[in-house]
Amino acid sequence: MSGIVIWTYDWVPEGPRGFVRDLRLRWACEEAGLGYEVRTVRSDQRGPEHLARQPFLQVPFIDDGDIHIFESGAALLHLARKSEALMPRDEAGVSETEQWVLAALNSIEMVTMPWWFLSHVGDGADARLTAWMTKRLEQMEAVLAAREWLVRDRFTVADLMMADVLRLGSVRKLSGRPATGAYLGRVLARPAFTKAHADQIAHYEAADAARAQPVGE
Amino acid sequence: MSGIVIWTYDWVPEGPRGFVRDLRLRWACEEAGLGYEVRTVRSDQRGPEHLARQPFLQVPFIDDGDIHIFESGAALLHLARKSEALMPRDEAGVSETEQWVLAALNSIEMVTMPWWFLSHVGDGADARLTAWMTKRLEQMEAVLAAREWLVRDRFTVADLMMADVLRLGSVRKLSGRPATGAYLGRVLARPAFTKAHADQIAHYEAADAARAQPVGE
Repeated sequence: MSGIVIWTYDWVPEGPRGFVRDLRLRWACEEAGLGYEVRTVRSDQRGPEHLARQPFLQVPFIDDGDIHIFESGAALLHLARKSEALMPRDEAGVSETEQWVLAALNSIEMVTMPWWFLSHVGDGADARLTAWMTKRLEQMEAVLAAREWLVRDRFTVADLMMADVLRLGSVRKLSGRPATGAYLGRVLARPAFTKAHADQIAHYEAADAARAQPVGE
Repeated sequence: MSGIVIWTYDWVPEGPRGFVRDLRLRWACEEAGLGYEVRTVRSDQRGPEHLARQPFLQVPFIDDGDIHIFESGAALLHLARKSEALMPRDEAGVSETEQWVLAALNSIEMVTMPWWFLSHVGDGADARLTAWMTKRLEQMEAVLAAREWLVRDRFTVADLMMADVLRLGSVRKLSGRPATGAYLGRVLARPAFTKAHADQIAHYEAADAARAQPVGE
């Protein structure tokens, strides 16, 4: 049997550690008890093999037998179909879960990611983008004030994706809203997140250690 | 039988006509021969009923029997599961289609939409965002130079979504790359797009005509 393989970078600097998106897939596998292996592509030389798997030269991408896909959202939906721990089985439950996974990516991250990008390069974020993001975070606060989980009364990959988008340090500081804070506390307290997060940190720390070896050792 | 209902605005100004995202769902229904009805919410008074259906006060959202979902991407995946004309039926085909739908939304539109937003409000687009977008459009050009359709050798909702994202006027002008241009020509020549586009324009023109009626008529 060829199991699940999650592909990520061999090494990244300290800043993004704990935030590289392979974490979304590690977390999902941990929630569902799905076995997986992590393999790497070089982050400093993104060559033709990487490009053949990911046309934007990003990570993660995933293998699962004959399935080979990139985009963390698409890989997450694939994993979600393998276990009821990640998504309800009925048609309406699948659609509701997809709705919130897509909302996290296309209504929230579509604003937070460019905002984050502009905040960290050159002269900082644009006030117009900050206003747009603030509005979206307020709208999410209203959603989260009325419910514990996004889909029905249970954890799904929709919560995984939404919490992963909202936990980004600078975004989280700017939101600072009570329902969003309580929601993040609830979702990020899950043992599967803690393990996936610690494993990603350990993965890059091991790469530091390997780099520190004298050449030839 | 309660059929598919696509919800959109009752009226929008001329600028966005032909680009409101209900078009993605009309187009999918036309491709698959699925019957549907279009209903509207007020664009000038976005009240509690609208908020109950769409937490970011946007359109479209959709009803299909017991299924009620927002996010055009999620609604599109729901429709795609109803017809092989929109998505292959096998597991790998579903995952590949989802991969490219997500790529259109989260790797391309995540950059083009904020870029478009900043281009049209205040002092224009940010050079850093323009550089980021240009790189992504170049990467898509390389993808489209090597294939006719995104998934296998056939049209799917992945092409529908990608073409809808790439056709946005100002983005298209900036891309101006041969493979992307040929791809857009191919996808947008489909009769289902032509009909959905014309129907959306007609929908808003009819609203203009209704507004022009004297009060009380």
